[in-house]
Amino acid sequence: MPDIDVLGIGNALVDVLSHETDEFVERMGLSRGAMTLVDEARAHELYAAMGPAVEISGGSAANTIVGLASFGARTAYLGKVRDDQLGEVFTHDIRSMGVHFDCAMADDGASTGRCLVVVTPDAQRTMATYLGASAFLGPDDVDPDLVAAARVVYLEGYLWDQPVAREAYRRAARLAHDAGNEVALTLSDSFCVERHRAEWLALVEEEVDLLFANQAEIEALYETDFDGALARVRGHCRVAALTRSEHGSVVVAGDRVHVVPAHPVERLVDTTGAGDLYAAGFLFGYTNGADLATCARLGSLAASEVISHLGARPEADLAELARTLLHA
Amino acid sequence: MPDIDVLGIGNALVDVLSHETDEFVERMGLSRGAMTLVDEARAHELYAAMGPAVEISGGSAANTIVGLASFGARTAYLGKVRDDQLGEVFTHDIRSMGVHFDCAMADDGASTGRCLVVVTPDAQRTMATYLGASAFLGPDDVDPDLVAAARVVYLEGYLWDQPVAREAYRRAARLAHDAGNEVALTLSDSFCVERHRAEWLALVEEEVDLLFANQAEIEALYETDFDGALARVRGHCRVAALTRSEHGSVVVAGDRVHVVPAHPVERLVDTTGAGDLYAAGFLFGYTNGADLATCARLGSLAASEVISHLGARPEADLAELARTLLHA
Repeated sequence: MPDIDVLGIGNALVDVLSHETDEFVERMGLSRGAMTLVDEARAHELYAAMGPAVEISGGSAANTIVGLASFGARTAYLGKVRDDQLGEVFTHDIRSMGVHFDCAMADDGASTGRCLVVVTPDAQRTMATYLGASAFLGPDDVDPDLVAAARVVYLEGYLWDQPVAREAYRRAARLAHDAGNEVALTLSDSFCVERHRAEWLALVEEEVDLLFANQAEIEALYETDFDGALARVRGHCRVAALTRSEHGSVVVAGDRVHVVPAHPVERLVDTTGAGDLYAAGFLFGYTNGADLATCARLGSLAASEVISHLGARPEADLAELARTLLHA
Repeated sequence: MPDIDVLGIGNALVDVLSHETDEFVERMGLSRGAMTLVDEARAHELYAAMGPAVEISGGSAANTIVGLASFGARTAYLGKVRDDQLGEVFTHDIRSMGVHFDCAMADDGASTGRCLVVVTPDAQRTMATYLGASAFLGPDDVDPDLVAAARVVYLEGYLWDQPVAREAYRRAARLAHDAGNEVALTLSDSFCVERHRAEWLALVEEEVDLLFANQAEIEALYETDFDGALARVRGHCRVAALTRSEHGSVVVAGDRVHVVPAHPVERLVDTTGAGDLYAAGFLFGYTNGADLATCARLGSLAASEVISHLGARPEADLAELARTLLHA
């Protein structure tokens, strides 16, 4: 098993993106800016109502891992697809970035999961996810050698919505700590936080070394405003990187607080993947021994690239952008 | 059967687009700027070598029909997909534009066809097509009522590569003329012209009312330079619209020749679909009684939109762009 900087574990999804009006989001009863889980029938109903779409590999942790690979990091990913056309697309795209991905494909049951992403004129994305095969990632899929080889195991909060995936999550976190590695968690979505608050408060306190969250998510976790949440999180995990959209990010680590501005964006097209790519840049810096402010700057850099085009996978060579940033 | 402005018939494909270097095109033995037919094994080999990709519905005539729908035309399409995930994607995208599409899906045999599109840094596209289910479009799929209801039947030259599709083509052309409607043909690709020159010379002479070709294609058809080809085509079909990339287009109809400049493009991203969308704009003008120079201007307008982003389907509302152009 080669040395790995970051192993990501998450829901393996293909994104189906279309541009729609605000009225569409309202009419379809979607929760603007959030991720809603839907069953297959509802996914079909929403898809039928959507305009022409583009398919691009997605999945929150997978986006982060591909971002890390684009920076030049050594990466691996665990997530479940089916042996269907979209599963082939997901597998091709992640492997073509050099990510180690050999999680067994499901050969029956639900098809590869899809995230219907509705992008409104303000570039905000609203998501409806049909988990499909991704929900069947289980503890048996967690390869102990892979986890032991990874300096950081990065877990997405979305996993917590499925009991069997939760077991995979718990096993990976335990194996990582047993091997002396670190565990990173992203809170994923404020509604997701609402669903699991009590357990996540305990997790953040006891198991998470690096926490990623946006303002809505950290406020939902501690049921208070941003400053209050900042004070609360400080004692509960080693490093918390909290993003605030165009206001940049705040990194809290013990007594230290770093406030880092957002990276300028020429043309905001689609915010899908902003948080995922922030985590990618941050973890790239982190696993390369950069100071926390530099980690945050790399996070903002990667986020700015991904929101300047459609889809949550980087189009530019992030390693090259990083060289430009760090040597400017 | 409602009145239809244009019925398109072609290979129903999903495009798989990735950015690659010129060196990649050479190393993979692809014919730069052209379309090569590949079998499934070769398609897998090429796909495995390609970087991360984006999936967008394609197919030459289908792109034209979707462009026409975006202009506000009444449209229908005939093409064959399988009942698999990519077939669902193709069907969703074309129907969501309001195109009448109810060609029976194949329920066994080859999967939905794919066009691997390699976009090089100069925005040129090089294509490798695995026809899959699309090759099984046959004469029985040609609905006589649909053809009779369409003022123009638009056929892509690519169909000619498969004997059974060729029969569908011949049947549609005959039914169209029997109903007093017009037949439009695009020559599709200069290598495609080379494969079928003798038959196509006869077709253009005897059956085609409206001919679309780019410079390389019309030169290949008449085995001479552009001016020579222009002189030859003049007597052989009622209207020929010949495109010359950034040099715009030349429309020949009897004694009249219209030379129309290209529409300016702010940022050239991907030339995939340029010819298809030119035909869309031209046919929108044509079926609305516009003069030929205006038809060509509308063609250039639609082409300029599609080459300013990835993929061969319009992202902007072409009806709105047309209003701006025509009322400027």
